[in-house]
Amino acid sequence: MRFRFTPVDTTFYDLFAKSASILVDGARLFAEMLAADADRTASARLMKDAEHRADEATHEIIRRVNSTFVTPFDREDIYRLAAGLDDVMDYMEAAVDSIVLYELDQLPEGLEQQVEVLQRAAALTAEAMPRLRTMRDLEEYWIEVNRLENLGDQIHRQMLAKLFSGAYDALTVLKVKDVIELVELAVDAFEKVANTVEQIAVKES
Amino acid sequence: MRFRFTPVDTTFYDLFAKSASILVDGARLFAEMLAADADRTASARLMKDAEHRADEATHEIIRRVNSTFVTPFDREDIYRLAAGLDDVMDYMEAAVDSIVLYELDQLPEGLEQQVEVLQRAAALTAEAMPRLRTMRDLEEYWIEVNRLENLGDQIHRQMLAKLFSGAYDALTVLKVKDVIELVELAVDAFEKVANTVEQIAVKES
Amino acid sequence: MRFRFTPVDTTFYDLFAKSASILVDGARLFAEMLAADADRTASARLMKDAEHRADEATHEIIRRVNSTFVTPFDREDIYRLAAGLDDVMDYMEAAVDSIVLYELDQLPEGLEQQVEVLQRAAALTAEAMPRLRTMRDLEEYWIEVNRLENLGDQIHRQMLAKLFSGAYDALTVLKVKDVIELVELAVDAFEKVANTVEQIAVKES
Repeated sequence: MRFRFTPVDTTFYDLFAKSASILVDGARLFAEMLAADADRTASARLMKDAEHRADEATHEIIRRVNSTFVTPFDREDIYRLAAGLDDVMDYMEAAVDSIVLYELDQLPEGLEQQVEVLQRAAALTAEAMPRLRTMRDLEEYWIEVNRLENLGDQIHRQMLAKLFSGAYDALTVLKVKDVIELVELAVDAFEKVANTVEQIAVKES
Repeated sequence: MRFRFTPVDTTFYDLFAKSASILVDGARLFAEMLAADADRTASARLMKDAEHRADEATHEIIRRVNSTFVTPFDREDIYRLAAGLDDVMDYMEAAVDSIVLYELDQLPEGLEQQVEVLQRAAALTAEAMPRLRTMRDLEEYWIEVNRLENLGDQIHRQMLAKLFSGAYDALTVLKVKDVIELVELAVDAFEKVANTVEQIAVKES
Repeated sequence: MRFRFTPVDTTFYDLFAKSASILVDGARLFAEMLAADADRTASARLMKDAEHRADEATHEIIRRVNSTFVTPFDREDIYRLAAGLDDVMDYMEAAVDSIVLYELDQLPEGLEQQVEVLQRAAALTAEAMPRLRTMRDLEEYWIEVNRLENLGDQIHRQMLAKLFSGAYDALTVLKVKDVIELVELAVDAFEKVANTVEQIAVKES
């Protein structure tokens, strides 16, 4: 680890932790929405609120980059990390909104498992953010998120195979495909965040 | 603002302004194509020409980065901004081409409004490019483009909901979905350009 | 060309060459799978193996960036190039897997030609990687890959037009569209690799 003699604004770690904690909320809201008796429209509204909070958290990070002389790591990496966390939320919100928008009655088998992947990735990400301060013990985080992304990819392909098995009409296929692809994009976005953290750690080590 | 004592090649501002002005042309061509009596094949051809001009403008920027010793901002940011402007054109051209390719007779309600969003984003971008010289008064530009992207997202979702309402056959849904997604990607690409400008301004301020 | 007085770890060139050679394998496997008498499930398995080898090659590059003091070019560019090569393989593998997953009996006319584009782009990329050492004679490579991407785009649009001509049922359209879009993404990913090489060459020249 590099020694630093310049005082560094450490608020960034808190801001990233906050941003990731909103993803934990979002993934939980998504999971709750899948319950048989859930009020989906209400869930979508709560999700939209979470997305707004994520947007604000992102802008707070950008504003602070703007007004801070010495940042704990490259400005561009701070920007990329903030944008990456924001992307996860955007995809989760879009997935939830699509379910309501398309009035999907039957959700595909496998979706619950995929949203569990999102919840685990969100938890790992939220736990990792404070470790950016020391840049220690981050490797297990990005390895595990990469493993989750592989798992998510498998679940996604199984859902696609079932969807195209001939049991569903074309419009249903189109709607469900849209939803599960947005979920897959959210899983991928978690992996991109982990890759960004890996890059930062590589540079700073 | 930073004082600069090294002579800086200022041609870049003109090149970015030129590149953005081609997007204004492209968005206008798209709007004209939606008129009831438009010759769509002719519009698609003009759009293809505009895309070629955009390609040339992009390559001119890359060549100049290559041959210039002191650039007004990071080489990588110049590259990213040029590529971002190019992306907008690629998506607009692909959308227009798809309408012709799929022989879409009926265009979805909402598309006109969405192309208006493109026209406004293009105008804002073209007006902002010369302000890169002083890095002043850029904030209103990126805030407004972000607002337009939110509006575009809403219009897009309304079009999707209507498309999946059951009133259209599956092939029509597929074709229209392809077109409106390309338009949505063009709107997103404008936002990415604005985000790049924000990043550049943050670094240089 | 810049003179370098610091000993530079040159293993990177070998690692990039290795990574690109796996893409040559992958594109060949894809082409073989399209033969009338091919065992597609076996091809998909070989492709999955190739993807694993590509993953390992990528991680080897990242690990070496991590443990090397002086890299031949920017760490971030090494990372981006490695990730770009990896993306090509991911899309090719996903395309091959989709063909098996969807049990597609009839493959669209034009796909063979598009896989030839992949094979040519892979060959060009593999030949270019060792030239990163001297940064010489790279321009023809990225120009040619850009040309191939334009060709691939045309082939893709022709396949789309045929697909939507009304001769196929909606489920078939959806399946085939998925496959050819993954192939198109693989072609695009080759272009992104070429653009990254161009950026590196611009910086280092």
